[in-house]
Amino acid sequence: MIYLDNAATSFPKPERVYNTILQVMTKYGANPGRSGHKLAMKAGRGIYEAREIIADLFKVKDPMNIIFTHNATDSLNLGIKGILKEGDHVITTSMEHNSVLRPLMALKDKNIETTIVNCDNYGVLDIENIKDNIKRNTKMIITTHASNVVGSIMPIYDIAKIAKECGVLYMVDAAQTAGVYDIDVRKGIDILAFPGHKSLLGPQGTGGLYIRDGLDITQLKEGGTGSKSNELYQPIMLPDRYESGTPNAPGIIGLGEGVSFIKETGMENIRRHETELTEHFITELKKIKEVIIYGPKEHRAPVIPINIDNRDSSEVSFILDSMYGICTRPGLHCAPLAHKTIGTFEQGVVRFSLGFFNTHKEIDDTIKAIKSIINEF
Amino acid sequence: MIYLDNAATSFPKPERVYNTILQVMTKYGANPGRSGHKLAMKAGRGIYEAREIIADLFKVKDPMNIIFTHNATDSLNLGIKGILKEGDHVITTSMEHNSVLRPLMALKDKNIETTIVNCDNYGVLDIENIKDNIKRNTKMIITTHASNVVGSIMPIYDIAKIAKECGVLYMVDAAQTAGVYDIDVRKGIDILAFPGHKSLLGPQGTGGLYIRDGLDITQLKEGGTGSKSNELYQPIMLPDRYESGTPNAPGIIGLGEGVSFIKETGMENIRRHETELTEHFITELKKIKEVIIYGPKEHRAPVIPINIDNRDSSEVSFILDSMYGICTRPGLHCAPLAHKTIGTFEQGVVRFSLGFFNTHKEIDDTIKAIKSIINEF
Repeated sequence: MIYLDNAATSFPKPERVYNTILQVMTKYGANPGRSGHKLAMKAGRGIYEAREIIADLFKVKDPMNIIFTHNATDSLNLGIKGILKEGDHVITTSMEHNSVLRPLMALKDKNIETTIVNCDNYGVLDIENIKDNIKRNTKMIITTHASNVVGSIMPIYDIAKIAKECGVLYMVDAAQTAGVYDIDVRKGIDILAFPGHKSLLGPQGTGGLYIRDGLDITQLKEGGTGSKSNELYQPIMLPDRYESGTPNAPGIIGLGEGVSFIKETGMENIRRHETELTEHFITELKKIKEVIIYGPKEHRAPVIPINIDNRDSSEVSFILDSMYGICTRPGLHCAPLAHKTIGTFEQGVVRFSLGFFNTHKEIDDTIKAIKSIINEF
Repeated sequence: MIYLDNAATSFPKPERVYNTILQVMTKYGANPGRSGHKLAMKAGRGIYEAREIIADLFKVKDPMNIIFTHNATDSLNLGIKGILKEGDHVITTSMEHNSVLRPLMALKDKNIETTIVNCDNYGVLDIENIKDNIKRNTKMIITTHASNVVGSIMPIYDIAKIAKECGVLYMVDAAQTAGVYDIDVRKGIDILAFPGHKSLLGPQGTGGLYIRDGLDITQLKEGGTGSKSNELYQPIMLPDRYESGTPNAPGIIGLGEGVSFIKETGMENIRRHETELTEHFITELKKIKEVIIYGPKEHRAPVIPINIDNRDSSEVSFILDSMYGICTRPGLHCAPLAHKTIGTFEQGVVRFSLGFFNTHKEIDDTIKAIKSIINEF
């Protein structure tokens, strides 16, 4: 089995992530922050350490500015709905995932206006288009860091600069980059949403949000926080304000272990390996005349969408899985406008997304499989 | 170590829950519902099976009416904020957890009025007080099934009857009962919120919400659902409408395994064991003159809050943990009004909450420890 669906969720995780999760569940599976006993304290400490190591990864000074959520979608909804109020205007791009676009579309009813800046048909953004669309009531710019469809990388620090110059907030969706690409929030990122279960190598059921100091984001949920139990109103301190209810302690601590693996391995080594595989894959794909490769000509996150002539992407993906044991994702990848942008809204694409645990041999086998599909099916 | 903090989270879980979670993570840790390959399909099937077994537990006809969430707080926020609109009135009780009270207090700003019906100082509700407070604009009644502070059990089917007679919705918070007490939604429960990690014996990072057919609950989040990827608007079909973003597949499938354990063991056997331990514990506690026991005189969920004379509850809980290895939770338990109701808002209580894996010997050892604290500390 060759798993090339890492943009959906990374698989496998490092062995130590599994071990840690099992350890938390079996040895100190208590409710962190709710009681004072040793097991609860140990779980609470584990969560704090995860907060610390993630804060460090993104150059966040205070770990309390890292909020844990259910997944990146949960984080994005909090960032978007917690900031935007009636009459606000927001700018985003045509390469966004539905986790950004659908909340924004839902806000139309609240008189919140969205401008969607088109990228070119390689999925690349011209930042002048962002600048040109800023107006008096623009409150925020939201962009992905890398497209989940074509891997095109957004110039986040250039956008941050524009945002700062114009007094506008900047929120980044790091769903496809956190854990592989350098992200330094000090360079002008106000809000950063990330999943735990993709390149940060944690388990599903985890995600997070960095919130810059002093930003007043309205919480979307209230509930027990284990703090200020005497009060009927939600505490405003971080992270409690945004973390109501029992946290996913084994998941969060497992996520911390994933990030620890990344740090010890070296993010640059992970990136180098993934980039090398991606380049090798594209080089070989280019030799096959029936294959159409989408996305930027240079530099991309390890996401490679293709089609074989005009064949149905679901059919190709199905054959890859059933005949060759190769896991990919066909169709529209929850990003309809990205597919309109690159011209694949009707056909979809077969998306190959690579991860740190993929090998050269797997890429070669995949190339062979694609050739064989062209010849035999 | 004696773990008596099961009302916060059950610990340990059945061995098979750990094994299942590990199995999902290591063998088919893909993203369910996002791709068509075998691993994703297997994860998707696992989630569906969890939905089925939980639906069956609560006598829900269609598994698609079970929504998976991050925790019970997440579920309660969805039920509360998805139903209540400006001008609505809602009735709840003084025994509620902050996961109900804090969302309701936050809704005051939106002109949503809450009536909090007082229970007596044993934590017991007189349902006439619910009836008396229903008015023209009452939209919903929300009650816990059992108090997390004193274990008093609400007459949910009697309340459901009143709700139905008055054309009002009824939402139940089953945080302390799901998995131990019979819950039959057909008897008039419109919305049922439950945690996965308490008596359902699943892992943290899981919770759920039953939504009666035809109820239009506004979603709090939008995002990718793996379905209708071509659309910029949230799909309205269940469960997709409320399950945006990557689900916690290992957690949910582990939760399904917990419920499977419950079914095989027999919920009535679990309840009998917990009730027996609770009665034994209370009988022994009553023999200690320094101990004050709070809560109903008869019938309660296995939650026993006490104080030793007027000693600080945190101090007693600390000694129980540090000297005797007994895990309890002191203080206010995220339920300030419940403590006002029973008269312990200042002192708090030491809460002992029992689970299926507790034994008679553990209860006896706990009684000895309490006696020894009275004599020695």
